[in-house]
Amino acid sequence: MSGETSPALLILDLTGTFAFALNGALIAVRTARVDIVGVITLGMITAIGGGIIRDILLNGLPPATFQDWRYLAVAAAGALIAFAFAHLLDRLSLPIMILDAIGLSVFAITGATKALGFGLGPAQAVILGTITAVGGGTLRDALLGRIPSIMSDGLYAIPALVGASIAVVASLLGLLGPVTAISAATVCFLIRVVGMHFNLNAPRPPGPRGRAEPPAGD
Amino acid sequence: MSGETSPALLILDLTGTFAFALNGALIAVRTARVDIVGVITLGMITAIGGGIIRDILLNGLPPATFQDWRYLAVAAAGALIAFAFAHLLDRLSLPIMILDAIGLSVFAITGATKALGFGLGPAQAVILGTITAVGGGTLRDALLGRIPSIMSDGLYAIPALVGASIAVVASLLGLLGPVTAISAATVCFLIRVVGMHFNLNAPRPPGPRGRAEPPAGD
Amino acid sequence: MSGETSPALLILDLTGTFAFALNGALIAVRTARVDIVGVITLGMITAIGGGIIRDILLNGLPPATFQDWRYLAVAAAGALIAFAFAHLLDRLSLPIMILDAIGLSVFAITGATKALGFGLGPAQAVILGTITAVGGGTLRDALLGRIPSIMSDGLYAIPALVGASIAVVASLLGLLGPVTAISAATVCFLIRVVGMHFNLNAPRPPGPRGRAEPPAGD
Repeated sequence: MSGETSPALLILDLTGTFAFALNGALIAVRTARVDIVGVITLGMITAIGGGIIRDILLNGLPPATFQDWRYLAVAAAGALIAFAFAHLLDRLSLPIMILDAIGLSVFAITGATKALGFGLGPAQAVILGTITAVGGGTLRDALLGRIPSIMSDGLYAIPALVGASIAVVASLLGLLGPVTAISAATVCFLIRVVGMHFNLNAPRPPGPRGRAEPPAGD
Repeated sequence: MSGETSPALLILDLTGTFAFALNGALIAVRTARVDIVGVITLGMITAIGGGIIRDILLNGLPPATFQDWRYLAVAAAGALIAFAFAHLLDRLSLPIMILDAIGLSVFAITGATKALGFGLGPAQAVILGTITAVGGGTLRDALLGRIPSIMSDGLYAIPALVGASIAVVASLLGLLGPVTAISAATVCFLIRVVGMHFNLNAPRPPGPRGRAEPPAGD
Repeated sequence: MSGETSPALLILDLTGTFAFALNGALIAVRTARVDIVGVITLGMITAIGGGIIRDILLNGLPPATFQDWRYLAVAAAGALIAFAFAHLLDRLSLPIMILDAIGLSVFAITGATKALGFGLGPAQAVILGTITAVGGGTLRDALLGRIPSIMSDGLYAIPALVGASIAVVASLLGLLGPVTAISAATVCFLIRVVGMHFNLNAPRPPGPRGRAEPPAGD
């Protein structure tokens, strides 16, 4: 999702883009009555939306994914496959989730690294890495009219935050390179996978409510 | 919605802006309990939101509609008329839909052309033309908490995509001028109108679901 | 929410940021089943989202709140306090509403002033001042899947619009300084507080509907 030229990173980045588009489009098919335009739009937004928000906030426009047609092509392909084969792909939910976790990990680290490269501070870089990883799914859910799953279910933003933080700390210490980047992504990936396996959730607000009905007021 | 200076194009562009604001505000009045702030905000977002997204992604900020006050004035006027006369305008749904289809066609072609002028590639220009045409309505629907109608009902994004594609191909062939631009817009307009008349829809995902209840998971 | 250096303004600006984050996070806790990630994200978006939209439209990227870590820190602190003590803060709704009205007033005036400083016209500056004040809450509500409260309940955007307009007119007359800025903010604050006290609402569309069920069509 960024413009770095290392072939290994490019392959990982395109893998994540494909996985996000496939998974995002499958969620669209499952949760709403949308047509092919909706499925492809929502899949592509899931895949490249986070990087677009990052590039807007970084002042890195036009977004990286608009400067390299391969991102658009891979995202469109993932969404189209989901459109055509949604009923078959349900059986592949484990490999799809694994691919999605790889995308999460790659995007968190490349997003944070890109923010540092644009001169942003460490806290901002961690936030932008996390946004790169979770922003696309958040946009998709907002368009579907549902509360973003990153805000309510499972561990999704937290592994991205941890991975991005490790990459930023490594960079501050002058240690950021392929080994530390892969380590940071691996930590993110492991937290995500362990969280899925044990069905872990982030803490909810204490107290009696948890889920009241909407009151008035701004 | 762009900064070109041809008087004919400006009139078409302002006509489209007015129609989008009127129609967007009417949809707000019909589908939700909103006050005058909501009606005008949603009407204006419908009218100028697509062009704003285009200009952000193009790195053409501030947006064109913030640099020429006539767009803001025409959009506000359309929304105000809808606020005041919503109950009368219901009888004019056919002419409003025709005006809206003109806006769709103009915005798709001017959006794609502007993207090419900013140096973006052909696929990106087609996407940005389509976003110019359908982005405002999508933002409106997201704010109203409903699934964007471009993703679920009728043919709306597809005619824009076809019109933008024709304009981009004409440009690649060195043939883009008033005649080809008007031809591209006319094709978009005709597909939209024929689609409305015969109540055509884009294909839906194959298989047994179509519309399951929201499962968990990201 | 802007980069001005007057200490008094900075304190007011950070107070508004804190109040918006606290109130936005409390609304998230009350209206939806969100976890700590959701509460903090929604509180921070409420606090800094309006300024970010303003800075995007102004071409003032990266946003001011990403260039001064204190805004991020204060916003995160407000949201965290709301997460931890939501059940106690219910009793403090009056002081929280007062703080929130201060934030509304400060953001409307600083937002409009910043837009003028970037060379935008008066109408655009009024719009951007209002967006600075109400944009964050609107993004929060869109993510929560509910119709933005600024579009349906009470007087919230209108006081911001009036305050921003006074500041812009004062600037056009060459009278914009601390006294007129504080006067404009005070007018905004008073309209907001009087509106809350008397439960005033903006006008709704005339005619029989008001709130029909969603029909089809774009």
